[in-house]
Amino acid sequence: MRHPAGDGPRGPADTIGVGYYDLVTLHDLVASIFCSRGLSDEDASAAAETLVRADARGVWSHGVARVGMYCSRIDAGVANAKPNITVTHVSKAAALIDGDDGLGLVVAKRAAQEAISLVEETGIALVGVKRSGHFGMAAQYVETCVDAGLMAWMYTNSSPALPPWGGRSAIFGTSPFAFGAPTGVGQPPFLIDMAMSVVARGKLKFAGQRGDPIPEGLALDSEGRPTTDGMEAFNGVVLPFGGVKGAAMSWMMDIVGGVFTGAEHAGRIANPFKGLDRPQNVGHLLFVAKPDLFQPIEDFFTAMQETTTAAKESPRAAGVETIYTPGEIEALKADEARQCGVALSTDVVTDLQTLAADAGISWPFATDGTRLVI
Amino acid sequence: MRHPAGDGPRGPADTIGVGYYDLVTLHDLVASIFCSRGLSDEDASAAAETLVRADARGVWSHGVARVGMYCSRIDAGVANAKPNITVTHVSKAAALIDGDDGLGLVVAKRAAQEAISLVEETGIALVGVKRSGHFGMAAQYVETCVDAGLMAWMYTNSSPALPPWGGRSAIFGTSPFAFGAPTGVGQPPFLIDMAMSVVARGKLKFAGQRGDPIPEGLALDSEGRPTTDGMEAFNGVVLPFGGVKGAAMSWMMDIVGGVFTGAEHAGRIANPFKGLDRPQNVGHLLFVAKPDLFQPIEDFFTAMQETTTAAKESPRAAGVETIYTPGEIEALKADEARQCGVALSTDVVTDLQTLAADAGISWPFATDGTRLVI
Repeated sequence: MRHPAGDGPRGPADTIGVGYYDLVTLHDLVASIFCSRGLSDEDASAAAETLVRADARGVWSHGVARVGMYCSRIDAGVANAKPNITVTHVSKAAALIDGDDGLGLVVAKRAAQEAISLVEETGIALVGVKRSGHFGMAAQYVETCVDAGLMAWMYTNSSPALPPWGGRSAIFGTSPFAFGAPTGVGQPPFLIDMAMSVVARGKLKFAGQRGDPIPEGLALDSEGRPTTDGMEAFNGVVLPFGGVKGAAMSWMMDIVGGVFTGAEHAGRIANPFKGLDRPQNVGHLLFVAKPDLFQPIEDFFTAMQETTTAAKESPRAAGVETIYTPGEIEALKADEARQCGVALSTDVVTDLQTLAADAGISWPFATDGTRLVI
Repeated sequence: MRHPAGDGPRGPADTIGVGYYDLVTLHDLVASIFCSRGLSDEDASAAAETLVRADARGVWSHGVARVGMYCSRIDAGVANAKPNITVTHVSKAAALIDGDDGLGLVVAKRAAQEAISLVEETGIALVGVKRSGHFGMAAQYVETCVDAGLMAWMYTNSSPALPPWGGRSAIFGTSPFAFGAPTGVGQPPFLIDMAMSVVARGKLKFAGQRGDPIPEGLALDSEGRPTTDGMEAFNGVVLPFGGVKGAAMSWMMDIVGGVFTGAEHAGRIANPFKGLDRPQNVGHLLFVAKPDLFQPIEDFFTAMQETTTAAKESPRAAGVETIYTPGEIEALKADEARQCGVALSTDVVTDLQTLAADAGISWPFATDGTRLVI
């Protein structure tokens, strides 16, 4: 099966091709698993949508492979399957959401909805979130805002993974920053979603699980030594991207995501996999603005097109066929996945089969994933 | 003379020690030069303050070395010495500033003042700026907001210097991103100011002027070849920091700074040194928020202190004596400079002497800079 964007991030199917899974069926399976853990139909569907969308966009490190992690937190009583999410309007343009230890997948969606509602009066809106959890792919919430016609900036903090600049212990999270803007009818949005680490920690874990070595310079092991073993790296510290600049940004994430919102911070957020003794209390910050705040929307789109064209049609470096806008490769993959399904590696399929069986849900796919049973 | 932060960025005095210059005298000299070009006393003082403050913080690439560049733009008629800066309130929380082609140093200060005023009603404020110019050190405007008790995010676009990811021509600017937050009484603010390039272009130019080689991997020459010659790098393309992530952020800067505000964009901003045929029309975006928006200020400061302590007191990497907060080294240098003056290299002194002589201003320093004449 052709991958439309071969120079994008490598997915599990490139190394372990066990078949392609239909998005709708996969969504319903994951939603059913979440329902079995006590989530409402609406919340289960939202959580499943974010995870399946991540796989569809090629961000497999934040896809359905994480279903088991979220379920474990509910099973351990440190994530709330039926949170009482509250919204406090602190000004005409700002709100604070208390996620009541719900899944980040559910709480962050609520934040996007609130931002979209709040932006009407003043043209900008800021939503702080506390008592949330790991929210999966940051791009999801930014894309929700972009689909509503807005520009959006999303910040979060997360469990310790990176040292401060000059340190060797994990204090700050990989804490993704995401930004999105609409580009006009029929074109994918401009969409950045970047961890503060050289690579996403999830990708180190998958490399470790597959036994693939990782390049040097990405991480230190738990003793502070350089390592090329994915699992040792996952259990150690990832290094920040861009040296001191990425390190400073990961520190900023703890301030704007945690310190500012009243969420946990200072390296005390529980690891979503291993920290099953307490809620995470992750904090997020979502800022949105109307793209026509300063000029008519037509002028915004014209200018956006000019910048896109200038970059995409500029001379290419040796060996490069296409200059992509940020988010374009992921949008191409998502289009392909809508028709062809997503690739899942054997370990992910096995995990999902176990989760389904435990919940009494019949497996909806044929063994090779290519043919749908339902 | 001791440098309090020896592991900070290397300044010109480390290689060419021609003396230390008193900040107040230097400010008055630079303000007088700007007055001679037609700036009002207030604007000349503001412009001088930003440049001298950059030298004091050790950001000498954006210091008084740039006075000649700003004067050249006024002399060429492409920067306006007496701009009619207008402010349009587009909502209760947002304003658009038209800088009327004034110096960025003057226009961006006006943006900070407007944001500080606007934030009162809704707790957040967004100020877009168009028809501005090169504004010097981004940290200046963020620090102004932090001094007013606010958190601040500053974005700008700038003249082409970086290729898009996969390209080899300069389309996007080095476009600094700056963020600041107050930390409590008596402590320096958390202050990030980072160009989207591996290094500031100004530092390449200074290396070239001094004949110092630059490390590989920082830049390509005008033919797209790797170079270690600072001046060839300055005339070519600087590479983005952090690979594809920095490249995506520099693209974002053109969108939020230029496309969104109605300023110039798409690689068409005039180079501040060489592009003397037209105004720059640089765009900025400044967002501010009250740190006590979501909780009492005491709780914010307590949380801030916890994060600072966790990072600064964490185990250090080999060879590291102190873990600094972002902005701390610069604050230490500024404290030292207040007492001891700032170091200026020979070429910068010569430029200032020429500018002063042309304007009929007597040189206020002794030849070695260590003794004040006035």
